Amino acid sequence: MSKKITPRSKDYSRWYTDVVQRAEMADYAPVKGCMVIRPYGYALWENIKEGLDRRFKATGHVNAYFPLFIPESFIKKEAEHVAGFAPELAVVTHGGGKKLEEPLVVRPTSETVIGHMYSQWVRSYRDLPLLINQWCNVVRWEKRPRLFLRTTEFLWQEGHTAHATSEEAEEETLRMLEVYRDFAETDAAIPVIAGRKSQSEKFAGGDASYTIEAMMGNKWALQSGTSHFLGQNFARAFDIKYLDRNNELQYCWTTSWGVSTRMVGAVIMVHGDDQGLILPPKIAPIQVVIIPIWRDEEGKEEVLKAVEDITAALGEQVRYKVDDREEYSPGWKFNEWELRGVPLRLEIGPRDVAKGQVTLARREGGKKIAVPQEGLTQRLDDLLEDVQQSLFRRAKSFLDENSFEVDDYGEFKRIIGGDGGFVYAYWCGSDECETAIKEETKATIRCIPFSQKGEAGRCIRCGEEAREQAVFARAY
Amino acid sequence: MSKKITPRSKDYSRWYTDVVQRAEMADYAPVKGCMVIRPYGYALWENIKEGLDRRFKATGHVNAYFPLFIPESFIKKEAEHVAGFAPELAVVTHGGGKKLEEPLVVRPTSETVIGHMYSQWVRSYRDLPLLINQWCNVVRWEKRPRLFLRTTEFLWQEGHTAHATSEEAEEETLRMLEVYRDFAETDAAIPVIAGRKSQSEKFAGGDASYTIEAMMGNKWALQSGTSHFLGQNFARAFDIKYLDRNNELQYCWTTSWGVSTRMVGAVIMVHGDDQGLILPPKIAPIQVVIIPIWRDEEGKEEVLKAVEDITAALGEQVRYKVDDREEYSPGWKFNEWELRGVPLRLEIGPRDVAKGQVTLARREGGKKIAVPQEGLTQRLDDLLEDVQQSLFRRAKSFLDENSFEVDDYGEFKRIIGGDGGFVYAYWCGSDECETAIKEETKATIRCIPFSQKGEAGRCIRCGEEAREQAVFARAY
Repeated sequence: MSKKITPRSKDYSRWYTDVVQRAEMADYAPVKGCMVIRPYGYALWENIKEGLDRRFKATGHVNAYFPLFIPESFIKKEAEHVAGFAPELAVVTHGGGKKLEEPLVVRPTSETVIGHMYSQWVRSYRDLPLLINQWCNVVRWEKRPRLFLRTTEFLWQEGHTAHATSEEAEEETLRMLEVYRDFAETDAAIPVIAGRKSQSEKFAGGDASYTIEAMMGNKWALQSGTSHFLGQNFARAFDIKYLDRNNELQYCWTTSWGVSTRMVGAVIMVHGDDQGLILPPKIAPIQVVIIPIWRDEEGKEEVLKAVEDITAALGEQVRYKVDDREEYSPGWKFNEWELRGVPLRLEIGPRDVAKGQVTLARREGGKKIAVPQEGLTQRLDDLLEDVQQSLFRRAKSFLDENSFEVDDYGEFKRIIGGDGGFVYAYWCGSDECETAIKEETKATIRCIPFSQKGEAGRCIRCGEEAREQAVFARAY
Repeated sequence: MSKKITPRSKDYSRWYTDVVQRAEMADYAPVKGCMVIRPYGYALWENIKEGLDRRFKATGHVNAYFPLFIPESFIKKEAEHVAGFAPELAVVTHGGGKKLEEPLVVRPTSETVIGHMYSQWVRSYRDLPLLINQWCNVVRWEKRPRLFLRTTEFLWQEGHTAHATSEEAEEETLRMLEVYRDFAETDAAIPVIAGRKSQSEKFAGGDASYTIEAMMGNKWALQSGTSHFLGQNFARAFDIKYLDRNNELQYCWTTSWGVSTRMVGAVIMVHGDDQGLILPPKIAPIQVVIIPIWRDEEGKEEVLKAVEDITAALGEQVRYKVDDREEYSPGWKFNEWELRGVPLRLEIGPRDVAKGQVTLARREGGKKIAVPQEGLTQRLDDLLEDVQQSLFRRAKSFLDENSFEVDDYGEFKRIIGGDGGFVYAYWCGSDECETAIKEETKATIRCIPFSQKGEAGRCIRCGEEAREQAVFARAY
C-alpha cells in the first residue's frame, strides 16, 4: 500500500482516513460501521485510559463492570431516553439456539441497567454517594461511520454516580467535566471550550449536559467528553431510593459522564499534519524512536553498543523504541516514524559516537540538535515536556485565531460558510433560532460556554434580547 | 442482608455464592446468566489483568481491539468451530431499526474475525510472527450460570498469533501456557497441573489444546487457562497466507490462548474459608486494612495522628485502606475485612501508640503480633510476601494430599465418588474409555499432564496398554 497521504488542504476527510490507516491506527471491520483498533491505535487508547483512570480514582471513583445486554423493557422505562436511543439500537433476538422471550438490547449506554442495580444496592444515606465507573464497549447503529469518530461499536468509559442531594450531583457533574478538561489540555495537549449543551443537544433523559469542545484542524468542532446531570429522572424510572437521616425515603440524584475512543480522533485531527500523526508525549505509545545509522557495516558495532548504553540508561523513564531493522534505509525510517507521530527522533551514527553525542529531531518542527550522551535521559525528559507544551500552545493559538465574536448574522454566515471556525454569538435560547441557524448555515450550538462576559446582547438571528453567548460551529 | 456464610462442609456451592455476594464481588444481572462485577471484584480482576498484561508485553505481545459483532457466515467457515460454538451463540438480527440482511453473532471467541483481519495484514514472512492480544467481553449462552465460573457474558483476554512455521506456533502455544502457570502460581498463589487436553475436550477447530488445572476447596478441578495450537485450520478457512523467503505463498500457523474472569472464581475457591475470602497479597485490592481503635473519644486524637504518620510512610508501596468509620465497632470491622479477605489487618489503639507499636493479624491464620512503628513499611512488605508464600504452600499441600495415583478402577470410583480429588491413572487414549469413565463416575479428563513417569501402564478402564497417565476429576 502506498504510504502517500492526501494533503489536508486538498481533502481533509481523506487526509484523516489516510493517516488513520497508514499509521496503522485502525482498520475497517468486516461488519459495516465497526472498526478494528490496531495495536498502535490501541496503545494510544491505553495511555488515554491510564490518564483518565488515574484521575477518576483520585476523585474517589471505583471501577466495576455491568452487563452488555439490557432487557428491552428497561430502555423503555425513561420516555425521553428511549426516544433518543431507539433508532440506534442493536437487538439480540436469539440466544442459545432459541428465540428469546424478551429481546435484549446491546447497551448503547448503561444508565438503565446500572439504575436497576443501584436500586438494589442503595438503602440508606450511608451508601451515598455511589461513585462507579466502567470501561467497556457500547453499540449505537451508525449509518455514516468514520473511524474513531462515529462507529457502530466503540470503546469508552461511563461514570455513573448517585447522590443524596441535587447540589452534590450537580457538583459531581461539573467536577468530572473539569477532570475531562484537565486531561484533554494537560495530557492530550488539546485546548477545549467547556460549557453547557443546549436543550436540543443534551443527553436523552437527562436534565442538563455539559461538554468539552475541541477545534479540529479543519476548524470543525468535536465534542470530546460529556457530563450529564440526570436529576431524579432515572432514579424515578428505576426506583433508586434511600432512607435519609430522618428515616424518610427519598429518590437519589444521579449523574453520568463519558469519554470514548473519539478522543483518539481528536488527537489525530488537532495535532496531525501532512506528514501524518503528531502525538503529544504524555500519551504517545513511543516517545522517542532511536535510529542507529551506519554504512556498509562501518561503525556498526560502536553504534549499536552506544544504543545499548543509551537504552540501559533510559530504563523505563522514557517510552522508546529502537528501529535497527537492516532492510530499511534511515530515510525510509524517518518517514515511517514521522507518519506515526513519534515526538522525538534520536539518530546516532559513527560521527555521533565519536563525539559522545546523539542527534535529536522534534516531530513538530525545528532544527535537528546535537546533544551529549551524558545526561541524556534528563535532557529527553525536558524536551518531551517542551514538545508537550509546544503542541498545546500551537493548538491554542489555532483555536484562538479561528474563534470570532460576531453580532451580525451576515458575518456569521460568511465565516461558517467560508474558512470556518468557532463563532461566539448571542442566542435568545429558543429552539426555533437554534434550528433555523442549523438549517441556514449547518452550524450547531456546540455549547453555551461557562466563560461569559456577563453582559446581555441581541440574538444573532432574531434580534431578541439574549442573556448568553453560544459557540457555533460545524461539527463532527 | 445477613452476612452469615454457609459453611463449606454443609454446602460448598452455597458457600461460594454466599462469599461472592456478601463480599460484594459480584451480583446477578437482570438478564439471566449475566453478572455484574462489583467494584471489589473488579479491583481484583484489574490486578489479575495487570499481572497477565505485564507478562504478555514482556513476551513481545501487543494489545488491540477487534469487533464485538461477527458475520454469521464467518463462524461457519471452520466446520469443527461452528459445530462447537453454534449452541452457545447470541445473535443480533436487528440493527438501527431494521432487520439485518445477515445476522450478526456476538463473539463467543474471535478466531474468525481476527483470522479475517490477519489475512489482510500479513503479506510476507517479514510480517511474522504477529503477536496480538485483546482484553474484551465475550458471550456464550449459559443454561446453568454460576457467578464468575459460567456466565453468559464474561471478560477475558484472548491472544491470537500467526507464525511462519508449525514449530514456532507450537513453541508460542507452550510459552503462553507457561505464562499462565507462572501467573497462577506466583501472583494468584494457585498451584496448577499443566498438560494437554484430550481430543474430546480440545478447542473446537484447533489441533491441540493445553490447560492449567487447579484444585478448588471441594477438590473439584477448575480449568484456569488454556492455550491452543490451531495448526493451519483457521489460516486455511480465512486465507492467512504469506510469501516466504523463496517468494512462495504459504499458509500461516496460528495459536490462541485465554484467561477469563473464571480466575476470580478460582482465587475464591482455592483460598477462601468459612469466614469468607482470603486474597493473595499480590492481587488483593487492599493488602492491609488499618483499623484505629479508641473508646469514648479517649486517645482518639493520638491514634488518628499515628495512623496519619503510618500511612504517610506507606505511601504507594502498600495498598492499604483506613477504616475509621465511627458507626461500626472494631469487632464488626474485623469480621467485615475478614469476609473480604484482606491479607493483613493492622490495629492501633492508645496502648499501641504509647508503646510505638501496632498490632498485626494475618487473615490466613496465626497469632496477632505486635510490631514497632519504626520500619513498619519494610515489615509489612516482608509479611505480605510471607503470606503470599504461605497461601501457595497451603494450596499446594491440599493439592498434593488430594492427588492419588490409582491403577484399580474400583479404587478410582471410590475416590471420585467419595471425598474426591485428582486421580492420576493410565488411559489408553480412546474416546470410548473417556466417555465411559465420565458416565460411570462423572469424572472427566482434566489433562494429560506434561509431567509423566515415562513408563507404560494399563488403561484404568479397559486394561489395554496405555502410554500416558491422565488426571481425572470432577470439574466445574
